[in-house]
Amino acid sequence: MSELETISMHVITSAEEICAVVLAAKSSGQSVGFVPTMGALHEGHLSLVDASLAECDLTVVSIFVNPTQFSPEEDLEKYPRPLQRDLQLLTERGCEIVFVPTAAEMYPEGVESTVEVGSVASPFEGASRPHHFQGVATVVSKLFQVVPADRAYFGRKDYQQALVVVQLIEDFNLPITMRVCPIVREPDGLAMSSRNTYLRPEQRQQASALWQSLRIAEQAHAAGETDVAAIKKKMMQHLNSAGIENVDYIAFVTDGTVQEVETVAGPTVVAIAARLGKSRLIDNHTIG
Amino acid sequence: MSELETISMHVITSAEEICAVVLAAKSSGQSVGFVPTMGALHEGHLSLVDASLAECDLTVVSIFVNPTQFSPEEDLEKYPRPLQRDLQLLTERGCEIVFVPTAAEMYPEGVESTVEVGSVASPFEGASRPHHFQGVATVVSKLFQVVPADRAYFGRKDYQQALVVVQLIEDFNLPITMRVCPIVREPDGLAMSSRNTYLRPEQRQQASALWQSLRIAEQAHAAGETDVAAIKKKMMQHLNSAGIENVDYIAFVTDGTVQEVETVAGPTVVAIAARLGKSRLIDNHTIG
Repeated sequence: MSELETISMHVITSAEEICAVVLAAKSSGQSVGFVPTMGALHEGHLSLVDASLAECDLTVVSIFVNPTQFSPEEDLEKYPRPLQRDLQLLTERGCEIVFVPTAAEMYPEGVESTVEVGSVASPFEGASRPHHFQGVATVVSKLFQVVPADRAYFGRKDYQQALVVVQLIEDFNLPITMRVCPIVREPDGLAMSSRNTYLRPEQRQQASALWQSLRIAEQAHAAGETDVAAIKKKMMQHLNSAGIENVDYIAFVTDGTVQEVETVAGPTVVAIAARLGKSRLIDNHTIG
Repeated sequence: MSELETISMHVITSAEEICAVVLAAKSSGQSVGFVPTMGALHEGHLSLVDASLAECDLTVVSIFVNPTQFSPEEDLEKYPRPLQRDLQLLTERGCEIVFVPTAAEMYPEGVESTVEVGSVASPFEGASRPHHFQGVATVVSKLFQVVPADRAYFGRKDYQQALVVVQLIEDFNLPITMRVCPIVREPDGLAMSSRNTYLRPEQRQQASALWQSLRIAEQAHAAGETDVAAIKKKMMQHLNSAGIENVDYIAFVTDGTVQEVETVAGPTVVAIAARLGKSRLIDNHTIG
């Protein structure tokens, strides 16, 4: 902990301790906001922190690279963990309490239980990443007990993840209110993501084609096109022309669901996942 | 609700309302005990109520025949639901707050999430009743959110169920303390169970052989026998001689686990399940 001592912030590693801090705040009438993260913070995360700070008396950020939401072949080992920088960013933003548990604190020996949230977790990210949402739902279930906040803040970039957490909250009667905050983008439109750091310079340039393809969908719809197949074709042409061949999915779903539509007839989320080299990027945009 | 109005007791059917009542009690410094039941109350349940009343300022009993813990071929439809009698018994015992949700209150349309607790749920009851413990763990997870009590009271007759709930509490960091209370027996030793009412008179007589077989195990061990196979043989002989042929399992496990042993070398739970006609009875006893 010596490297952290220069930062004026409460860094708590014990589940019992963070729980006591949150309960004490609530007992004294304070509202508590919670921003669960895997660290490697960017302006997307920090916008969630800002939203919580604006709405709640106390804001708790957790930094935990949750192993159970990674598949064996995924990037758990190389996932960035710039802890000191993260704490510095949170301090500058005015967040005073950060929960940084070890894997052993979150998953003591003998832990085996898991949560399945059902059909909302099946398609798209759930299909591409088996067990991913089981890992997300399980760790979020645990974090919501350990940090019994009034409100939780998630980013809309992970659209399906937000739906999974909403389903979890509703199905298990969890006493927390979900806030889903807008996507924060780089100047060229690329959605901010901790995984963007994996991109080599030429891939980083290509990556903006994801956002461009979502804008193409928006513009096509604004020009009167409602046929999803036709819009997808335009998007795919653009992605291919930018050198992105490995598209996991382009999906048009009714906003707030994972229900695919064939015609844009109301608020519709266009979601996309593509691979650039070893990196996998996702993005989405609401049209209609 | 008119039939309930003669009973001086708070019968609450809304999850939101019971949660508010419990939180208000806790805010005012009261400790809260929770006894989740499926109704058809007997002295076993009432001993849990007594334990909670003795230890907690406020006791909440829930009565909910949870559909998700029954298999399609099981006795959900015919499970006894003597609600008025249950409320009368609770009133006499001094319990003032009963939560009686409908299935729609606990499982609104769209609910899909489930909890799996892992290996503790696999053998014995888990093997005989697929999905049973998934249903138990899921409804207990929900009930613990809706009734955020300090302590939960379960009976030791459902030994493996108690282990499942302990695992659930530990794995999901649930802020509740588990109390497992002793088995309550009829004068002839039959463990009290709401399902005993299914037994026809001759089956009811036979049923005491379960307890007798557990006593035989205890006595054999007291006389120096430690070999589990030898003790099981004596138990089975007794059960067969009483006309009980359909034994699901006799298991010797280290107390507090579902780990089977071949030799009694310390505190050991002897668990038994058998079918008498259409009824399935379980019991257990600790020896060693």
